[in-house]
Amino acid sequence: MRATVMYGAGDVRVETVPDPSIVEPTDAIVRSVRACICGSDLHPYHSLQQLPQGATMGHELIGVVEEVGSAVTKVAKGDFVIVPFAFSDNTCPICQEGFHTACLHGGFFGPGVGGLQAELARVPQADGTLVKVPDLGDADDATLASLLALSDVYLTGYHAAHMADVQPGQIVTVIGDGAVGLSAVLAAKRRGAEQIILMGRHESRTDLGREWGATDVVAERGDEGVAKVVELTGGLGAHAVLEAVGHMPAYQQAYGVVRPGGIISRVGVPQYEEAPVGFGSLFAKNARLAGGPAPVRAYLEEAVAQVVAGELAPGKVFDRTIGIEDVPDGYQAMDDREALKVMIAF
Amino acid sequence: MRATVMYGAGDVRVETVPDPSIVEPTDAIVRSVRACICGSDLHPYHSLQQLPQGATMGHELIGVVEEVGSAVTKVAKGDFVIVPFAFSDNTCPICQEGFHTACLHGGFFGPGVGGLQAELARVPQADGTLVKVPDLGDADDATLASLLALSDVYLTGYHAAHMADVQPGQIVTVIGDGAVGLSAVLAAKRRGAEQIILMGRHESRTDLGREWGATDVVAERGDEGVAKVVELTGGLGAHAVLEAVGHMPAYQQAYGVVRPGGIISRVGVPQYEEAPVGFGSLFAKNARLAGGPAPVRAYLEEAVAQVVAGELAPGKVFDRTIGIEDVPDGYQAMDDREALKVMIAF
Repeated sequence: MRATVMYGAGDVRVETVPDPSIVEPTDAIVRSVRACICGSDLHPYHSLQQLPQGATMGHELIGVVEEVGSAVTKVAKGDFVIVPFAFSDNTCPICQEGFHTACLHGGFFGPGVGGLQAELARVPQADGTLVKVPDLGDADDATLASLLALSDVYLTGYHAAHMADVQPGQIVTVIGDGAVGLSAVLAAKRRGAEQIILMGRHESRTDLGREWGATDVVAERGDEGVAKVVELTGGLGAHAVLEAVGHMPAYQQAYGVVRPGGIISRVGVPQYEEAPVGFGSLFAKNARLAGGPAPVRAYLEEAVAQVVAGELAPGKVFDRTIGIEDVPDGYQAMDDREALKVMIAF
Repeated sequence: MRATVMYGAGDVRVETVPDPSIVEPTDAIVRSVRACICGSDLHPYHSLQQLPQGATMGHELIGVVEEVGSAVTKVAKGDFVIVPFAFSDNTCPICQEGFHTACLHGGFFGPGVGGLQAELARVPQADGTLVKVPDLGDADDATLASLLALSDVYLTGYHAAHMADVQPGQIVTVIGDGAVGLSAVLAAKRRGAEQIILMGRHESRTDLGREWGATDVVAERGDEGVAKVVELTGGLGAHAVLEAVGHMPAYQQAYGVVRPGGIISRVGVPQYEEAPVGFGSLFAKNARLAGGPAPVRAYLEEAVAQVVAGELAPGKVFDRTIGIEDVPDGYQAMDDREALKVMIAF
């Protein structure tokens, strides 16, 4: 099959590799219908050291089950499924508590298991991981895009709002106008936030943010951006801050704009290990810190039903569709900010 | 009046100072019945630089209202009241959201307003700050001790459990066997925690911890302590970690023992500003960080009613009672760990 392999910063290739096969009796093989490129794929695209054996890429996929292992009972050949970006058994104590990305028998797609920017995928823990899409019928492109968005990007934005416990009537600040930040705006709006301040400076993106519920857009960054948000919130700050970037300046903005007792919820993978959390940043004002890799699986059944019912359409984050052979160009377009998020159609 | 003043590390004196008087029409003057020394008073006792003018000490008090300003309507001369360690108007948006220690018109006792290890106290924002004790009658010493414990220590432990959202059946780890840590054990037990692991090594203290609900005591610290707690929790870690120390090793233990999706709730004032919060500490496992100065006022009416009804008796943290002239010895006894917490009777 054709698959995406990265050999170093900026060096993405599409190559012919062996088809995946059932390794464990709990595996399934899924034939790709739509996959995509993630903002987080740009981190290795910027910084991956030369890697002679290459790293197989991609972790977002919808497709059709082609084969299942002998222990798989909940999905079968021909089922149309969502593949969340982490696999999990959906039964261990941690999954039962809703944190599937830390499943005791789970893991992530990529080197080892195999990446999902490829024609076929091996999915471990298939019974726990895969969620069938019922009554798909002849889904149009927009529906497929929205279903694909549930494998990571939208439900990562949703996770930010969920962990911040966004309540009706609250003031929410979203930091970052990438596809996850915009998804966080949509999720906060759906939870009933009254004021949603989007911190971002790319007009084509913040326009989608406004369409999805942002009431204010703040282009300023740093102290200037913090002052602007504080002013917009009557001097009190935001109840919830959804941080969808992962760099230290975004974290600093987050604790600058959070109100006493408020919650900072991070879903941008932190590109730092240490950060201010003492009296001067979080402690004095009882500000809370939450977030992590989204346990997409926990939210998937409900979100699939909303997409199929036409209530939820997060697929608008995809503004370009390519074929598998054009994946290297897709990385370049996202890195150049010519594309917000690139979908791969098979 | 006689009052406690600190002039530098280890230099605590009881001196005659002018009686406080009404400054703002919202003030009240309270005559002390019981006050005490806080574990947090030991931080300046260790490290305060020479201070020629001295720093007035103390922030925990129960007493009788002696005089009120012209704008005070909710308390009157003769009322028996609890003075929470922070004053607040109890009406601003932040107070209404339950975070009185960040009240827009509030502040802390000590230099400026005056400390509470003294015969009389000026209490700003008296209507918002003071909580009357109804039906006190001829309260015995134990009841007075328990009421005093509500001004800070017990409700600080309670705040830790509250912000960690401790639920019935959960596993809780409490770090620190000081008076706040033991209070956190009691609060976790009252919220229905099933397993309460107390990390501490002072047997006389951990004995009170066991009496209050600790099911396990772990004397080990660092990696060894973390490994012990993880083992005691079936390899999963604790749902809630109540951190009542404030030093970096305690924080490191906290993120070591918290389970995926769990909450670290800090009430020990952090003696650090930066700490690990990235992928390797909090983020990968969706661990959350909460806590700060306890908004005692938010919890006070309910707790007073529980003490008066005899359901709650946190006063056992006081294991020594002294008069005002002996306060310097009280600091020394707490610093030497000869006393857990020292009460001052007037």
